[in-house]
Amino acid sequence: MKIVINRDQLMNSIQDVMKAISSKPTIQVLSGMKIEATNEEVKLTGSDSDITIESIIPKEEDGIVHIHDVTPGKIVVQAKFLPDIIKKLPDDTVEIESDDDLNILIRSGQAEFKLNGQDPEEYPQLPLLETENSFHIQIDLLKTLIRQTNFAVSTSETRPVLTGVHFKLENNQLELVATDSHRLASRQIAMDEDTSQIEFKNIVIPGKSLGELNKILDESQESIQISVSDNQILFRTKHLFFLSRLLDGNYPETSRLIPDQSKTEVQVNAKDLMQTIDRASLLAKDNRNNIVKLMTQDQHKIEISSNSPEIGTAEEVLQTNSISGEDLKISFNAKYMIDALRAIDADEVKISFTGAMRPFIIEPIDDAEHILQLITPVRTY
Amino acid sequence: MKIVINRDQLMNSIQDVMKAISSKPTIQVLSGMKIEATNEEVKLTGSDSDITIESIIPKEEDGIVHIHDVTPGKIVVQAKFLPDIIKKLPDDTVEIESDDDLNILIRSGQAEFKLNGQDPEEYPQLPLLETENSFHIQIDLLKTLIRQTNFAVSTSETRPVLTGVHFKLENNQLELVATDSHRLASRQIAMDEDTSQIEFKNIVIPGKSLGELNKILDESQESIQISVSDNQILFRTKHLFFLSRLLDGNYPETSRLIPDQSKTEVQVNAKDLMQTIDRASLLAKDNRNNIVKLMTQDQHKIEISSNSPEIGTAEEVLQTNSISGEDLKISFNAKYMIDALRAIDADEVKISFTGAMRPFIIEPIDDAEHILQLITPVRTY
Repeated sequence: MKIVINRDQLMNSIQDVMKAISSKPTIQVLSGMKIEATNEEVKLTGSDSDITIESIIPKEEDGIVHIHDVTPGKIVVQAKFLPDIIKKLPDDTVEIESDDDLNILIRSGQAEFKLNGQDPEEYPQLPLLETENSFHIQIDLLKTLIRQTNFAVSTSETRPVLTGVHFKLENNQLELVATDSHRLASRQIAMDEDTSQIEFKNIVIPGKSLGELNKILDESQESIQISVSDNQILFRTKHLFFLSRLLDGNYPETSRLIPDQSKTEVQVNAKDLMQTIDRASLLAKDNRNNIVKLMTQDQHKIEISSNSPEIGTAEEVLQTNSISGEDLKISFNAKYMIDALRAIDADEVKISFTGAMRPFIIEPIDDAEHILQLITPVRTY
Repeated sequence: MKIVINRDQLMNSIQDVMKAISSKPTIQVLSGMKIEATNEEVKLTGSDSDITIESIIPKEEDGIVHIHDVTPGKIVVQAKFLPDIIKKLPDDTVEIESDDDLNILIRSGQAEFKLNGQDPEEYPQLPLLETENSFHIQIDLLKTLIRQTNFAVSTSETRPVLTGVHFKLENNQLELVATDSHRLASRQIAMDEDTSQIEFKNIVIPGKSLGELNKILDESQESIQISVSDNQILFRTKHLFFLSRLLDGNYPETSRLIPDQSKTEVQVNAKDLMQTIDRASLLAKDNRNNIVKLMTQDQHKIEISSNSPEIGTAEEVLQTNSISGEDLKISFNAKYMIDALRAIDADEVKISFTGAMRPFIIEPIDDAEHILQLITPVRTY
């Protein structure tokens, strides 16, 4: 194999594919990156067996030549040093050549690297995803959906299925739900295209996969194809294949966790509330639980406070837009609230409480987006 | 004590003073920051007993009022949370008030923090520096001197005196030397002001102190006063006192380490050399020693290479400006060379070798600055 390729283009692809390569792979050959050259394109593949990423560099695109010379073939290169080597090469183009003895030569300007390669025949074949469950979504929107839910997945392996985000497609509605059992984040959208022929209810994508996918995808109004099979999901754009395994197990029925009535409702500016809670939690962070208290006051005010006996107390009164219903004293994890407010990303939010011991809901006041964040309070009063 | 003070001004001072405060102080009160308010100024003090920093905020400066209200007094505040609290306060001004029971109230806008203070009488008195050994130097220049030498101090406590930079002032010449016994960095300057009455030869300042000082000092053409006593050094600007202990022990005589003749001399572009060595060392980093080889070739060329048996080899031929003297093959630590070239910060450098086993010298070709970097090679050929 031999390619002469544009360095920046190669570098971008390498950085994407690196996200699937583990420093402690289960089989040795997965510590490498597979490079396959044909007369039409160069394809890079990385995999940690949970996630597989393929990035394709076409020979030419929009009149710009990316690959200047090619002798078809394939090789597996040690991934550990590859990004640094390519990044620091002196010239705009890179030549990569491999021989039958798996020797790899990387050349750019006067710089020459000789690396020991690995046998591409040992590289596992990607499982072919056979499915008719396929639909499209705008990349920007997918990134937003991930951002609004993925932070709430569980980081504990006690219930593995909770470490993923639950995807449900039904009646042309796509719903994402994540919960670590202390809080829950959900977002629903109506599909642009007709997906009435497709339905899936128990698809759980590992949070880690979604996190990496979100990093790789640039903000774009182009669409991404999503294909779902029994145990895998494939995200596919023009030059990228992102394949992730799905989590086993039944995702819990979460809809019954969400209270359908409230006793106290507070409408408040999201940014003001976030900053106030951030300040109040400064002293609370030290004792690990990061608990702040919220107390309704007269004249549409709430008091946010925290107390760390050895250090001191913080308190702040915040003017809300409105408070209706019963008086309330409630305690919760400040980080959960800040995460939720950040995910909602609205100017004004509505918080619906059902007493001090029941989960409460945070939603944008203008709920065109069908986003809902739920937090379970902490018993302190 | 009570002060109403500009938040940004207070924040800057706190950040400077924090650099002297250890998270594991030798005595409890040093985990705090002392705040002293008089009718003229607010003074913040932090100390880890090696370094003491005082930052002064004048009531008014250049017509700008920093302190809006003051009731003189002093208190020691827990330093750990202070920067975060002040940074996140909602208002442009901060009110800090302490009572006789050492309760501290920090108020800004609607936010209120109550902190437990410590008794300022327990805070150690700063040792008064009594000395007539005092001179001035431009802040920019001092920062350059630190940058050009401090990286070469030893990080090992085997010979504690080598963890500092040796300052020598003699015949109106100030010389700084640092060495970890594998490499040496030195810089000499002629003093602008007449310092012929002052002489010191065995002043060794901890590298850590100089590093912190360099972080605190902003680039400026103003001058800083340096006062030296037997066991301390004080750096003083209008609003900053930076006091460091000196290291005990006799600094080794380093001038005899520097070869006064050479067998091979290479003149080369510093940036080209740095990038070539950086690339060649990519594979060498893995086996910890980070060794690259330099070999002279015909036609004023040098080859830089490295070899890591399990990974591969890197080599690159670099055109120099000139090579004179004997042919040479030599191996050295790539990081030492990159550090040295970065410290010299010249376009073209001269490297003077005295055979493969002797230390070699790197200097700017235009040696108006009297900077010298010395590196001991590694035996590989």
